[in-house]
Amino acid sequence: MEFIRIVIDTKGGDKGAESMVKGAALALKKFENLAVLLVGDKALLEQTCAALDMPENRTEILDAKDEITNYDSAAEALFTKPDASMVRALAALSERDDLAGMITAGNTGALLAGAMRYLPLETRVRPALAALLPAEKGGFVCLVDTGATVDCTPQMLHHFAKLGSAFMKESYGIEAPKVGLLSNGAERTKGNKLTKETFALLEADSSICFVGNIEGNRALSGDCEVLVCDGFAGNQVLKVTEGTATRIITDVFTYAHRNQSESAKALGAYLMSKYDLGSLGGGYILGVRKPVIKTRGNAGELAVVSVSQMLLNRAQNKALFDLKRNT
Amino acid sequence: MEFIRIVIDTKGGDKGAESMVKGAALALKKFENLAVLLVGDKALLEQTCAALDMPENRTEILDAKDEITNYDSAAEALFTKPDASMVRALAALSERDDLAGMITAGNTGALLAGAMRYLPLETRVRPALAALLPAEKGGFVCLVDTGATVDCTPQMLHHFAKLGSAFMKESYGIEAPKVGLLSNGAERTKGNKLTKETFALLEADSSICFVGNIEGNRALSGDCEVLVCDGFAGNQVLKVTEGTATRIITDVFTYAHRNQSESAKALGAYLMSKYDLGSLGGGYILGVRKPVIKTRGNAGELAVVSVSQMLLNRAQNKALFDLKRNT
Repeated sequence: MEFIRIVIDTKGGDKGAESMVKGAALALKKFENLAVLLVGDKALLEQTCAALDMPENRTEILDAKDEITNYDSAAEALFTKPDASMVRALAALSERDDLAGMITAGNTGALLAGAMRYLPLETRVRPALAALLPAEKGGFVCLVDTGATVDCTPQMLHHFAKLGSAFMKESYGIEAPKVGLLSNGAERTKGNKLTKETFALLEADSSICFVGNIEGNRALSGDCEVLVCDGFAGNQVLKVTEGTATRIITDVFTYAHRNQSESAKALGAYLMSKYDLGSLGGGYILGVRKPVIKTRGNAGELAVVSVSQMLLNRAQNKALFDLKRNT
Repeated sequence: MEFIRIVIDTKGGDKGAESMVKGAALALKKFENLAVLLVGDKALLEQTCAALDMPENRTEILDAKDEITNYDSAAEALFTKPDASMVRALAALSERDDLAGMITAGNTGALLAGAMRYLPLETRVRPALAALLPAEKGGFVCLVDTGATVDCTPQMLHHFAKLGSAFMKESYGIEAPKVGLLSNGAERTKGNKLTKETFALLEADSSICFVGNIEGNRALSGDCEVLVCDGFAGNQVLKVTEGTATRIITDVFTYAHRNQSESAKALGAYLMSKYDLGSLGGGYILGVRKPVIKTRGNAGELAVVSVSQMLLNRAQNKALFDLKRNT
């Protein structure tokens, strides 16, 4: 069997290297064609891998002594900490053809800068940070941008539409992903200066499947597979969704406790698994040569599993596309 | 007993005049010091009021034959339809000292233009559209702006902070309402160009109680009583909250149905009453001489009751303030 190998940066997350390795072990158990390259403290990683009884032929370790933290300056850290695990991981991903993608829980700013440095496309573009959120109708909505660029031009939003479309095609095999533009009303006349100008650009581009304005209450409906907005607005959609879900789920558990209702408690657990945006991943860096995913700083083991699956899907889809293209 | 009288525009809503009058009847029953001036088709209103057995001494009717609909141009309707109920209602509110405020479910754009025309402050300002949302810690958050102005300057946001503070003080008697600035991170360095410049203005203004940046997941936490943002972002907060709540509550009912759980069904009903943003009111026009509240186009009778209460509270608080000021 040919393995698909992904890089996992084990440092930089809130829960420490052990949690990342545990996630990797779970993913290896779940996906038999997966292999990993763990980057971090060699001694610690060897010890943890042995304790978890991870398959040797699918587990590779790359030593990196240093760590980029959230206190480091994103712009400087790449240069002042050349032996940081994130830097080593990005360099390996860039150099080795057998590596299909990367997972890290580290500093987002440094990651954006690093991905741009180590994995530039032929035409250099500013990368975007997308979130993949569960749609009401099933499937996922790719929300782009969620915070990499908070002051955008219409050209940037147009570019996000193309990046998001390519991402959904490569990750899920959707031929022509529907692209929506986040606005304050569904009518084409609604919007601010930025979205009105963007509307015209998206409408004129026949390479994307533009479906028009989408209001906030329909953001995750599934009316579109790619939802385009500036990083400030995208951050609001992401965090307001999360805040509202957390608040209502807390209400459900309070109700269950107060009424000693087992049924309400089970319902709370179900909702928590369905709306736990943290475990669904985090930031997907678009506009670079290879897939790089930033899990939440506080992401647990399940996040590593779910993100590994995304990278696997994507590698398999890509292989299919390449095959089609060449035959 | 001295009554507090409010104007109710009975036309322009999706549910028709009868629903507005039914709401008024419920409010009159609930608040014994309330009186209403109903504006609309005189014959229909007289008939409905009689059928609902509304108290004559607290129910006044003003005839208005015409209606501003959502298809009318907001800028023109005020002039082309002088006999529209909204215009008559605004004119009455402007002219009569005994009227404490106004409720309408009609065209928001026309209402903003009309309020600016009939109820200008001495220093003329552009009015804002605020929403009053239930805070996690209890009480309310005044979100301003929610869509009146989608392209804002830092000066406008600074102005919204002052309008929101005055509103929360007058409506709820909060001496120094905490003002937050919606941003994409809690740290003061976070934000887009607009919010960073606004941060400096808010911080420098000692007349408001500025508590710093608030992230989307804390928008309705209650960390602040006034949350300031441009109308585009505010619209997202409002609609994403609503969309997420509706989606999760639907899940609760689906679960209740599938598992035939009476407990889950009761929980769904509880959540629906708690997060039914529609019945909590809608748009509060700030920056005009008297309180004007726009309920949702599809608002039902309960919205009229809850908004009447808000207007009553405000009139009573205002009377208290005036008394304090003069003694």
